[in-house]
Amino acid sequence: MTEMKRIGVLTSGGDAPGMNAAIRAVTRCAIYKGLEVIGIRRGFEGLLEGDVIPLTSRSVGGIIHRGGTVLRTARSERFKKPEGQVEALDRLRELDLDGLILIGGEGTFKGAWALHQRGIPVVGIPCTIDNDIEGTDMTIGFDTAVNTALDAVRKLRDTASSHDRLFIIEVMGRRCGFLAAQVALASGAEYVLLPEMPFDLDHLCKKLHYARRQGKTHSLIIVAEGVMGAQDLAAKLKDTAGYEARVTVLGHIQRGGSPTAFDATLASRMGAHAVKALLEGESGIMIGSLCGQMVTHPLPVAWEEKKPLSDEVLSLMEMLSI
Amino acid sequence: MTEMKRIGVLTSGGDAPGMNAAIRAVTRCAIYKGLEVIGIRRGFEGLLEGDVIPLTSRSVGGIIHRGGTVLRTARSERFKKPEGQVEALDRLRELDLDGLILIGGEGTFKGAWALHQRGIPVVGIPCTIDNDIEGTDMTIGFDTAVNTALDAVRKLRDTASSHDRLFIIEVMGRRCGFLAAQVALASGAEYVLLPEMPFDLDHLCKKLHYARRQGKTHSLIIVAEGVMGAQDLAAKLKDTAGYEARVTVLGHIQRGGSPTAFDATLASRMGAHAVKALLEGESGIMIGSLCGQMVTHPLPVAWEEKKPLSDEVLSLMEMLSI
Amino acid sequence: MTEMKRIGVLTSGGDAPGMNAAIRAVTRCAIYKGLEVIGIRRGFEGLLEGDVIPLTSRSVGGIIHRGGTVLRTARSERFKKPEGQVEALDRLRELDLDGLILIGGEGTFKGAWALHQRGIPVVGIPCTIDNDIEGTDMTIGFDTAVNTALDAVRKLRDTASSHDRLFIIEVMGRRCGFLAAQVALASGAEYVLLPEMPFDLDHLCKKLHYARRQGKTHSLIIVAEGVMGAQDLAAKLKDTAGYEARVTVLGHIQRGGSPTAFDATLASRMGAHAVKALLEGESGIMIGSLCGQMVTHPLPVAWEEKKPLSDEVLSLMEMLSI
Amino acid sequence: MTEMKRIGVLTSGGDAPGMNAAIRAVTRCAIYKGLEVIGIRRGFEGLLEGDVIPLTSRSVGGIIHRGGTVLRTARSERFKKPEGQVEALDRLRELDLDGLILIGGEGTFKGAWALHQRGIPVVGIPCTIDNDIEGTDMTIGFDTAVNTALDAVRKLRDTASSHDRLFIIEVMGRRCGFLAAQVALASGAEYVLLPEMPFDLDHLCKKLHYARRQGKTHSLIIVAEGVMGAQDLAAKLKDTAGYEARVTVLGHIQRGGSPTAFDATLASRMGAHAVKALLEGESGIMIGSLCGQMVTHPLPVAWEEKKPLSDEVLSLMEMLSI
Repeated sequence: MTEMKRIGVLTSGGDAPGMNAAIRAVTRCAIYKGLEVIGIRRGFEGLLEGDVIPLTSRSVGGIIHRGGTVLRTARSERFKKPEGQVEALDRLRELDLDGLILIGGEGTFKGAWALHQRGIPVVGIPCTIDNDIEGTDMTIGFDTAVNTALDAVRKLRDTASSHDRLFIIEVMGRRCGFLAAQVALASGAEYVLLPEMPFDLDHLCKKLHYARRQGKTHSLIIVAEGVMGAQDLAAKLKDTAGYEARVTVLGHIQRGGSPTAFDATLASRMGAHAVKALLEGESGIMIGSLCGQMVTHPLPVAWEEKKPLSDEVLSLMEMLSI
Repeated sequence: MTEMKRIGVLTSGGDAPGMNAAIRAVTRCAIYKGLEVIGIRRGFEGLLEGDVIPLTSRSVGGIIHRGGTVLRTARSERFKKPEGQVEALDRLRELDLDGLILIGGEGTFKGAWALHQRGIPVVGIPCTIDNDIEGTDMTIGFDTAVNTALDAVRKLRDTASSHDRLFIIEVMGRRCGFLAAQVALASGAEYVLLPEMPFDLDHLCKKLHYARRQGKTHSLIIVAEGVMGAQDLAAKLKDTAGYEARVTVLGHIQRGGSPTAFDATLASRMGAHAVKALLEGESGIMIGSLCGQMVTHPLPVAWEEKKPLSDEVLSLMEMLSI
Repeated sequence: MTEMKRIGVLTSGGDAPGMNAAIRAVTRCAIYKGLEVIGIRRGFEGLLEGDVIPLTSRSVGGIIHRGGTVLRTARSERFKKPEGQVEALDRLRELDLDGLILIGGEGTFKGAWALHQRGIPVVGIPCTIDNDIEGTDMTIGFDTAVNTALDAVRKLRDTASSHDRLFIIEVMGRRCGFLAAQVALASGAEYVLLPEMPFDLDHLCKKLHYARRQGKTHSLIIVAEGVMGAQDLAAKLKDTAGYEARVTVLGHIQRGGSPTAFDATLASRMGAHAVKALLEGESGIMIGSLCGQMVTHPLPVAWEEKKPLSDEVLSLMEMLSI
Repeated sequence: MTEMKRIGVLTSGGDAPGMNAAIRAVTRCAIYKGLEVIGIRRGFEGLLEGDVIPLTSRSVGGIIHRGGTVLRTARSERFKKPEGQVEALDRLRELDLDGLILIGGEGTFKGAWALHQRGIPVVGIPCTIDNDIEGTDMTIGFDTAVNTALDAVRKLRDTASSHDRLFIIEVMGRRCGFLAAQVALASGAEYVLLPEMPFDLDHLCKKLHYARRQGKTHSLIIVAEGVMGAQDLAAKLKDTAGYEARVTVLGHIQRGGSPTAFDATLASRMGAHAVKALLEGESGIMIGSLCGQMVTHPLPVAWEEKKPLSDEVLSLMEMLSI
């Protein structure tokens, strides 16, 4: 193991609130420990193009509270192929980088793993609003996205209750229901549809029917994008039972905004831990937060294991929506 | 003119932030002046059904900051027909109401006018997020909706700039561009499409093309719902010039939330002025705010004249998006 | 153990965001399980006065997102004395309550313990913005308070950086530094003073002096109320080293506002778990959340053990403020 | 009149939300019209030191929504003296500036007037949270500050109503009551003390006493800093009538944060109009917004005339707080 002198940091995949807080933490902790830090722009694509800037304590000042990523992000088809990865290695050597910290989700981690297998010291920081990474209780960005969606649902509740209406709200989360489940619970939504549970239209219609008879004049249904689109659900409800529902697709606003205190803190802690791990000679690993402690796992944990959604939430919703 | 002793208040049409602040102001000012106040629920439909509650100073306590309307709102097909209006008159007499204050937009005002013509003293308070009512510089709810949309656009800007992407954001406003124009100006959006200006796809594509060449890596297009849907615009941009755009339809979140200081204040002032006008024997009128002063106009002003959008905004956007 | 049929719920001590979400969860879960629920107003004082209202699924509808507590809260000198506690027992018997759920902090829990020792089945739910309760990773209200304070600090940063100024911001937390530490970390504040670490004025002045020489034109100092008042600190800095600092005391705004998603969720889970525990015959316990799991402990855990603040945060701040 | 080729822009005095939006508008409109733009940092002090940066369309990109001022601001004792002003003239000539746009409040405008009298073409843009500038209905920053204060008061209301308490909240506004009056009206505060009305402690105590007897369990008093400090008022209430009040001084958070839609729009319009006026050969003027129209006045209007506070607001509060 050669001594670490100069490391790179990049963000890749979909952006998430807290990416900048992580970039700042990586940069300042590395500088504090005597390293030089290079920011690679636009993820793996920028790496292939050698699109870089030096990062200093001052240049990451004031970014902790900004949404998005100052390093930008992009998808790279080239990097997915072996030739692209070999090229990336050349770039990393030209840039004289002794290690790389990669901030993103599953796709980012798979790219990091490819570089690790080709001999580059890499550490991954889990940052995605979907929270669909095993090995960490929470990913950076999830808490902010939940609160952004919650704020929107509260506004929709105003209209729903004023008009005695049924609303269907589609939230993000890819193939997982973490975002939908927490938004539903925190907003007091009446129903939630998650990829982790079988979709049963008859059951939903029965519950809607029962609630109407009990005098519930309005209802909110939260549907995870991994189940189906909100428009499709509205069409099914209309065809099957004649319900007229208003539809809102929250969309990309869930990715933006200043990070919450939780996400800014988690990003700071994970950024610092990533630098520490790299300096201690670790590679091919991701940072996780388990029971409030910083931990590391081999990167494949992120995608080889499926993070389970707690049953407790589902039974809670049943009781709380009466 | 008989002495006023007891008045009713209702909200009708689409809900808007500040409706509750207006209900509170009407109620407290009327009570202050010695009147009794009856709340009619669910607009004209509730009037026909006699669905009412007495309002007191205490019962409207704490509602000033709440979104939606505690009196709820509804559409009424029955009331649109002469028989329905006659029936409404009977209900008003049974309820022993000497006057009625109606909070809402154009449709509400047309209903109010029908009651006025049948001899009921009525005053309308303009409350709609669309700001499409002539006779008042601002309608209650507009300022809040603009700020809600602005907040969403700022979040989308985070993602757009991180991914170097083109975003199309559809905002409300019915057939008018007030909401879209102010959101565009306040957010620094690069382009805006308004019902008040001809739609020119070629011109838009040329501007996008020019901006790309100048090095603008991302752009936001705000489109008013009165022009076309955001999805349709995205399809046209793709077909004509190959642009890939992300689409967000802000939807009903624009109607919800606590009113801004401006809207809570405007609602308070208009509510007070409506009670004053009714007590002074006026009827068939709407309240307006012109140059900061409370004024009244005959109700038909609201729909017979088209409120113009200032040219200044359009030329400003041209300069500011360079 | 007699069968549970009817339980009471009260909030006591300082209010915290999420109290209403907890009341809602207790009420709906209890009703779901066949119990009747009585709300006791104004804490122990209201208990002594028999100031109660029945709670139903509908009456707790829409309160999940509201700050404060619909049951109100108060301090009670009477209840602290044995005679008061005996009187409270009489009231509980007259009200025919088989158990009591108490939502609040340390003082509330001590009162609950007194009732438990006199034979009343009680369960405590930890709800305070200070997070100073051992036995749970997080208390309800803490996450919201941190985010409220963070939002304020971000606004102060705007002014501090525009004017090249030193700001001192005093945050709550009683004798603990949890709130101050997380606000400092999440806001990127340059310095933090916590009750858990010795106060060293010389060291602080040296760091301020060093930062100035490095070109830092503005700085934020977060001081926990448990250390000293912000005004006192400003006076000391001026006397010792001539620094002119602006002072802001965040004060009671930290207690208000809608709960964050985290707090609304935690309150829902804890409320449900409290009902479950009471039905299973437990008493004299508090609910906790450890590593994401609902747990129970004897009430005295809350005050007999001191919850430690992680060292990691302190060393992190050292690195991140360079 | 020589042809304008190159202008300067500076911010001075207390910072206010929307300063950056104004800098952006000045810069882009000037560039659009073929001018070069120089940013002068730290107000008149930076002018004397020649602390400048060139501004481009790109360099002001993304600042429209940021609080504070990227050009920073400062107080300058030197500039207040004739020698300092002569020196400033030399600097302006060295910098080859044909005109200057100054963004700030009364003090800024007085400095601008001094330069105008020495032959420098100047235009002032009114930007202060106090709204205490005659000649414009609204100053940039006022609307944001009102909404920030309103948000804080809403949070305090949660606690006040939960604890049945009396709260005194001190807001900014210098010698004027605009901020206090609008916050009070929009928040539904029970009492407001403004510099524009005589302070009558007996009357206030009588109203508090009456409200208590009517069953009002909590009350909010908004006091403008121009009347007295909140702590002083609390002491007086205690000494005179035994009332225990909690005190909150909102302080500098009222200056920070992203501008509201109104302020971002007003700043954009005023910035554009200032460039237009300078190009048309005007000098020694300020921009105003009257009845929604951009206007200009000689600078002394700002301080020679006192902007009156509407009586309507005061009588409204009387009725609305019953």
